[in-house]
Amino acid sequence: MSGYYEKTCTAPVNIAIIKYWGKRDVSLNLPTNSSLSVTLSQDNLQSKTTIRADPSFSKTRLWLNGIEEDVSANKRMQTCIKEARRLRSLYEQQLLRDGNSDVVPLAEYNLHICSENNFPTAAGLASSASGFACLVYTLAQLYSLPNSTSELSLIARQGSGSACRSLFGGFVAWEMGVNYDGSDSIAVQIADEHHWPELVALICVVSDAKKTVGSTAGMQSTVKTSPLLKERIEQVVPKRMEEMVKAIKNKDFNMFAEITMRDSNQFHAVCLDSFPPIFYLNDISRAIIKLVNEYNAISSDYKAAYTFDAGPNAVIYTLRENVDELAGLVKRYFMGEERGQIPSSFRVDAVPILEKGSVRHIIKTTVGDGPRIIEDGLLNEEGMPKS
Amino acid sequence: MSGYYEKTCTAPVNIAIIKYWGKRDVSLNLPTNSSLSVTLSQDNLQSKTTIRADPSFSKTRLWLNGIEEDVSANKRMQTCIKEARRLRSLYEQQLLRDGNSDVVPLAEYNLHICSENNFPTAAGLASSASGFACLVYTLAQLYSLPNSTSELSLIARQGSGSACRSLFGGFVAWEMGVNYDGSDSIAVQIADEHHWPELVALICVVSDAKKTVGSTAGMQSTVKTSPLLKERIEQVVPKRMEEMVKAIKNKDFNMFAEITMRDSNQFHAVCLDSFPPIFYLNDISRAIIKLVNEYNAISSDYKAAYTFDAGPNAVIYTLRENVDELAGLVKRYFMGEERGQIPSSFRVDAVPILEKGSVRHIIKTTVGDGPRIIEDGLLNEEGMPKS
Repeated sequence: MSGYYEKTCTAPVNIAIIKYWGKRDVSLNLPTNSSLSVTLSQDNLQSKTTIRADPSFSKTRLWLNGIEEDVSANKRMQTCIKEARRLRSLYEQQLLRDGNSDVVPLAEYNLHICSENNFPTAAGLASSASGFACLVYTLAQLYSLPNSTSELSLIARQGSGSACRSLFGGFVAWEMGVNYDGSDSIAVQIADEHHWPELVALICVVSDAKKTVGSTAGMQSTVKTSPLLKERIEQVVPKRMEEMVKAIKNKDFNMFAEITMRDSNQFHAVCLDSFPPIFYLNDISRAIIKLVNEYNAISSDYKAAYTFDAGPNAVIYTLRENVDELAGLVKRYFMGEERGQIPSSFRVDAVPILEKGSVRHIIKTTVGDGPRIIEDGLLNEEGMPKS
Repeated sequence: MSGYYEKTCTAPVNIAIIKYWGKRDVSLNLPTNSSLSVTLSQDNLQSKTTIRADPSFSKTRLWLNGIEEDVSANKRMQTCIKEARRLRSLYEQQLLRDGNSDVVPLAEYNLHICSENNFPTAAGLASSASGFACLVYTLAQLYSLPNSTSELSLIARQGSGSACRSLFGGFVAWEMGVNYDGSDSIAVQIADEHHWPELVALICVVSDAKKTVGSTAGMQSTVKTSPLLKERIEQVVPKRMEEMVKAIKNKDFNMFAEITMRDSNQFHAVCLDSFPPIFYLNDISRAIIKLVNEYNAISSDYKAAYTFDAGPNAVIYTLRENVDELAGLVKRYFMGEERGQIPSSFRVDAVPILEKGSVRHIIKTTVGDGPRIIEDGLLNEEGMPKS
């Protein structure tokens, strides 16, 4: 029983189209409403995690983006590790009961965990979803857990709510559930990454110096102070979840686009209805919304749909046939570039031309797959980060 | 029966602290919820109107801020004139029935109406409330109408909804009413202008090049498309109206301030929940909110309360003892001035310093009286505008 056990996996980012905003249980990350997201391609955005279990390790250590962090200070990460170990122990007991004599007691070994993102934190894109999904998925591989992905989503959810959705590719619902212990608050796949290949996403990274309210603090302020949240939770979201599932199954971009934009708007509306009010959209975000509205106005069908998370960055969903035209407009109005044709009948003066750098960069990406197991690890022979 | 009859009056601006947003009947200007406002001093902001009735006038003419307008193109103004004439006719019939033989048939005479504001339109302050209140009040004086001010508010309301509140000084409720014909949708005074002399208002005129959605179009978009408006109308506003009346009667600035800020936030939240979303606040407005929040954080009692109408300008209510300190902060952070002490324990770096001119100017004003009858008219001997 010498030697070590190691696995390396990657996990994707997901962007919600029905927003998660509000926890009914903070420590378990149980949401006040269901949500729905699109998993984005790992070619552009992913977290990568190597975990090694070794009986010779004197303690569990963690490196995030090259910097060692104190695991004991990271309660959410401890919860995920603890839960994965618990499942591993159960599994080991099962194997022993089944007569296996060579069961490795991995649950007892200390771990070296090394994780990094292929996108800079400076991009302003939330990395906790892909990061926790990657952690939990890698642990499950390391421990050879027999559990389903939805079962694993219960653990990832406790790390970061939206991480549960990054365990699947394609289109993913996080069902809020009703149980007090959160045992039914899980992610399920609505359609896989091959279902709607025409759908693409344009991520616009927006310049913003100002610090904003973190999402956990923001959510709980909304839960405590917004008189309108109840209506959203009880009346609006359940209907939208149903309609959005239909839109995705039918590849109905008109319905998809309208619900996506309305739900982004409403999430920011309940933030503004909080006290003190929470603002994530800035004047650049507003101009992007204006541009998308004007772009949609040139056709009887929707051509694009914006959505904004807890920050000023836009993700614009569109169809492949439109993406270059749309990117050209973003470059022209917000990045100081002249390139790109203006579509005929587009009201050129209806959108303000903002200074160069208002959108710092754009990333074109597609719907992508769920976590992957890969060979190339982040730890060297000694179990320390390679870089 | 030669000669003319003329009256000149002034009327104040009012700023809502429970917002009017949504019409249940567009042509009658019947609101979806009650609202409540503070009438501001006419020393700073007022409309002034001279109306002359003369049997020799060949038609009714109208000058607004020095420019002649086509009365027939202004349906709302026609409605107000028609309604005032109807009341005058009834009154004339009454006088005749009572045996008066010298009743002047003023209702039949054409009118010259000349109106101007003492504040530039460029200030970005809504003038329709003071303008229509002034029109209706001047007509009532010209016609010697025996009707109560609340009865007159029925007419002003049909000119511009919020105009009904400018017929009273002090603190004014516009009760939404329930009747289909709007006969109970009237303004009533909650407390007069002498009730709370410590209360002052600081108007911050914000720089904003962008054109925004007009309030009538905006309201109706919200009524048609915001899923959250219903909750605001049915649940939130009725409670806030009661609490705000209490706050005013008790001169309870803490309660006044909190409801004022929460209701401004919620009005902008339902705008954002509309589709397409309506934005009236810009990054400067957001920074003003931040400044007020930080200013309130230095004390256990509220010191100030922001409110924003359908535009980026802020009105900040505060108590007289704080107004210079608060104005100093606004000048420092948004007008490029160094003057003004920073209050101790104010978190200097929590508010962004914006470029000079972000707030273009500030107006300090107080709670003021209702319409006034004055001598100095706007028409010359021939019935034409003096200037």
